[in-house]
Amino acid sequence: MPKIQFWYDFASNYSYLSAMRIEEEAAMEGIGVEWRPFLLGPIFAAQGWDTSPFKIYPAKGRHMIRDMERICADRGMSFRLPEPFPQNSLQAARLALIGEGEGWAPAFTRELFRLEFGEGASLADRQVLALALAAAGQDAEAQMQRTQAPEIKTRLRARNEEAQALGIFGAPTFITEGGELFWGDDRLEQALAWSLR
Amino acid sequence: MPKIQFWYDFASNYSYLSAMRIEEEAAMEGIGVEWRPFLLGPIFAAQGWDTSPFKIYPAKGRHMIRDMERICADRGMSFRLPEPFPQNSLQAARLALIGEGEGWAPAFTRELFRLEFGEGASLADRQVLALALAAAGQDAEAQMQRTQAPEIKTRLRARNEEAQALGIFGAPTFITEGGELFWGDDRLEQALAWSLR
Repeated sequence: MPKIQFWYDFASNYSYLSAMRIEEEAAMEGIGVEWRPFLLGPIFAAQGWDTSPFKIYPAKGRHMIRDMERICADRGMSFRLPEPFPQNSLQAARLALIGEGEGWAPAFTRELFRLEFGEGASLADRQVLALALAAAGQDAEAQMQRTQAPEIKTRLRARNEEAQALGIFGAPTFITEGGELFWGDDRLEQALAWSLR
Repeated sequence: MPKIQFWYDFASNYSYLSAMRIEEEAAMEGIGVEWRPFLLGPIFAAQGWDTSPFKIYPAKGRHMIRDMERICADRGMSFRLPEPFPQNSLQAARLALIGEGEGWAPAFTRELFRLEFGEGASLADRQVLALALAAAGQDAEAQMQRTQAPEIKTRLRARNEEAQALGIFGAPTFITEGGELFWGDDRLEQALAWSLR
């Protein structure tokens, strides 16, 4: 069974679109998904950006919101941009990284994205993180404490270095087993088709 | 018959993708196309960029080339990035603007994009512009002289001011009669569907 890596950041609205559909669409093609939470922040910083390009370039940001509204309406998904945007996704990424090793990252990720971009909930709210952990069958208090372990912090840094080394510059990004890189929710179908070549 | 505006810049590789298919795809939906050549340069300059974002952000530029190769292969189109990239599209935009008023902008635009991004030809080469003018049934020498008329220069400046006022920040951009703005070749189908609502 071919596998595809799904690189995503909880601060990224377009990652929300992919997180909610990738498992199902990949399964229909007989492809497995490897969830790869990471942080765009350090990558944007290396490009000289201190926040999302949607904030830096207001016309681009206005289009992004309208684009999200249209796409979510087409797909029957709700959309509400959290305040502030982008959200700080550090704690969420650490939790997803823990879940990645234990098989609950997909359920946690989907629920957290749904709360954040479907309902506009804040990632700074521990209650929100706890709801997503509970949806993934996890003990929220225990998992949140684990995010402070040096080992988790080190793993997230290594993950981000890997992203940079792979040439990742935005999210979502899909990488096939042959190393072919696709950027953007609108390239998901193409990335899956490539995985079957 | 509903109409859609197609805003494009000859320096934009993704505009090449749309130029080669928009007329046919719009016709199948019973939609007319209004070709709107403009220059991204002044818009990028207002955002603090002195060249294409694909040059400023190398990882993004590498992905763009691979993305173009994949899409062009899928669509049976050739692709060769001109050197240097991006090309200076001022003269080409003035010619297309003249053609827009006289009905030959589509034929001229398609042939020039095909030469530039299908064969890697230079927009600085008068022979290349002449070939595209000839393909549109025009007297190349006569049309190239017209680009120096103050009226044409003024019209192009007004066109760019209109682009900025409309919130255009990249190309290709599609705008429906209701003023709905879609950015990117990958939004063409969505823009056409919106035009029929």
